[in-house]
Amino acid sequence: MVAAYVLVQTEVGKAADVAKAVAEMPGVLRADDVTGPYDVVVQVEADGVDALGALVVAGVQSIPGITRTLTCPVVRL
Amino acid sequence: MVAAYVLVQTEVGKAADVAKAVAEMPGVLRADDVTGPYDVVVQVEADGVDALGALVVAGVQSIPGITRTLTCPVVRL
Amino acid sequence: MVAAYVLVQTEVGKAADVAKAVAEMPGVLRADDVTGPYDVVVQVEADGVDALGALVVAGVQSIPGITRTLTCPVVRL
Amino acid sequence: MVAAYVLVQTEVGKAADVAKAVAEMPGVLRADDVTGPYDVVVQVEADGVDALGALVVAGVQSIPGITRTLTCPVVRL
Amino acid sequence: MVAAYVLVQTEVGKAADVAKAVAEMPGVLRADDVTGPYDVVVQVEADGVDALGALVVAGVQSIPGITRTLTCPVVRL
Amino acid sequence: MVAAYVLVQTEVGKAADVAKAVAEMPGVLRADDVTGPYDVVVQVEADGVDALGALVVAGVQSIPGITRTLTCPVVRL
Amino acid sequence: MVAAYVLVQTEVGKAADVAKAVAEMPGVLRADDVTGPYDVVVQVEADGVDALGALVVAGVQSIPGITRTLTCPVVRL
Amino acid sequence: MVAAYVLVQTEVGKAADVAKAVAEMPGVLRADDVTGPYDVVVQVEADGVDALGALVVAGVQSIPGITRTLTCPVVRL
Repeated sequence: MVAAYVLVQTEVGKAADVAKAVAEMPGVLRADDVTGPYDVVVQVEADGVDALGALVVAGVQSIPGITRTLTCPVVRL
Repeated sequence: MVAAYVLVQTEVGKAADVAKAVAEMPGVLRADDVTGPYDVVVQVEADGVDALGALVVAGVQSIPGITRTLTCPVVRL
Repeated sequence: MVAAYVLVQTEVGKAADVAKAVAEMPGVLRADDVTGPYDVVVQVEADGVDALGALVVAGVQSIPGITRTLTCPVVRL
Repeated sequence: MVAAYVLVQTEVGKAADVAKAVAEMPGVLRADDVTGPYDVVVQVEADGVDALGALVVAGVQSIPGITRTLTCPVVRL
Repeated sequence: MVAAYVLVQTEVGKAADVAKAVAEMPGVLRADDVTGPYDVVVQVEADGVDALGALVVAGVQSIPGITRTLTCPVVRL
Repeated sequence: MVAAYVLVQTEVGKAADVAKAVAEMPGVLRADDVTGPYDVVVQVEADGVDALGALVVAGVQSIPGITRTLTCPVVRL
Repeated sequence: MVAAYVLVQTEVGKAADVAKAVAEMPGVLRADDVTGPYDVVVQVEADGVDALGALVVAGVQSIPGITRTLTCPVVRL
Repeated sequence: MVAAYVLVQTEVGKAADVAKAVAEMPGVLRADDVTGPYDVVVQVEADGVDALGALVVAGVQSIPGITRTLTCPVVRL
């Protein structure tokens, strides 16, 4: 399993709608509205790096109102 | 009370209109056009972090011409 | 209560040590090593914005090896 | 007169000391600790762009613990 | 007089057109296409900070295809 | 010859299509989807700096779905 | 297998030494000096995300002169 | 010939010294102190991309007080 934090920027005024929609997607553990350079922090889990990429590109990024996502895979050092 | 500086980026050519419109919103103390990576600096005050988020998302970001806002809450250390 | 994600950059080679040390601090719920522009993502909780600032500045930032922290308070919109 | 916001990054753990020291300098109207990508927001005033540069370089940047400053001059459009 | 470098980002594929159009504006000394995080570097001169702001906002930013400008005023230290 | 890495940001959901289209262009050696602040990394080769600029602006940037490119020319030190 | 591009920033004047040292490490396919916001681009391969993290943190980052690394894992979408 | 703008960040308080020292180097046409995210803008000229890299790494970066340089080669599109 690969876990990741996905830092999301949204169109102005869309942060709450995006967080709600993302939170209900499969593979998404949690989605929080935040202030700062990012608008929503999403915690996800997938079977591997490719599945993680697919989850973000085909899943999270399909939510209307998202302008950029930055995926930070968790590593166990 | 929570105070914050909101660093605003606007569409090209819209900085002056945005600053004027933002300056008249409730909760906004001041809005200045600036040069540099940001176009307008807004000083705001709200009852708490959630009210601050609502003020920025539902209020400031509703002004046409704003493309990104970066909220920096003031902390008393 | 105010929750926040703290995105941490560390000196090269120090990410694992920083994550372990941060994870044991009071107010810290979790700390994960990540790849990307940040090295560690920390989830914290505090009584308010000022307590959050104190937790980050006096607490998290006192861990050796941290070079920058970016605090993203969670807001309920 | 030229006014400016100076967005300051400090060494970890030094934000409060920097804000206090900067606030007492001539030409500085106010200095606030903030969370986010910057640590202190400083409001300054000077006689012109060159005096503003001198105030920031010779004045603000002489405070120990400051690692980067980003000066955003206010413009009246 | 205030001189400045204006670092311009353009829509993809528009850098050459933007550089040519900007180079012919009053107050613009030179405009070069570059590679890197910016697409065009413009050298400008104006009577003061406010005139510089007006030149960039009302002038340079009126060129179609520009998405962001970052103005760096020259200071004599 | 000048070689370069071109770091590409795409519209959300377009990374795979962009990588496939870019990979087939003349002058492009390879194009990989990546996670992080960039979406696609492209390796290119051209006859000189100007040809490299033309390849990126007239070639790569003509692919639909690309929002920003950052060209990093390889240097032999 | 997980492949990745590691974008490296070095201390000023150290780019060539870093590229040479990194290029000889196990798991590293290639390392190029570049101009732009990064100084060296490294191509690596590892057995998984955790091995990739270990390769970067315990391996690449142990080279003297590196100040920041940004790991961009390749994904097959 | 390849021309470039080199955007320089310096240690706090060192911008003026750096600009003066850089301005006297061979290959450097001009160096200006600026405010904003960069501290000095340098205009250089070299025989090619490799010579440009050498000029920046072996030349400009050897000046004490420089912490980062960002080289933007000029391209004729």
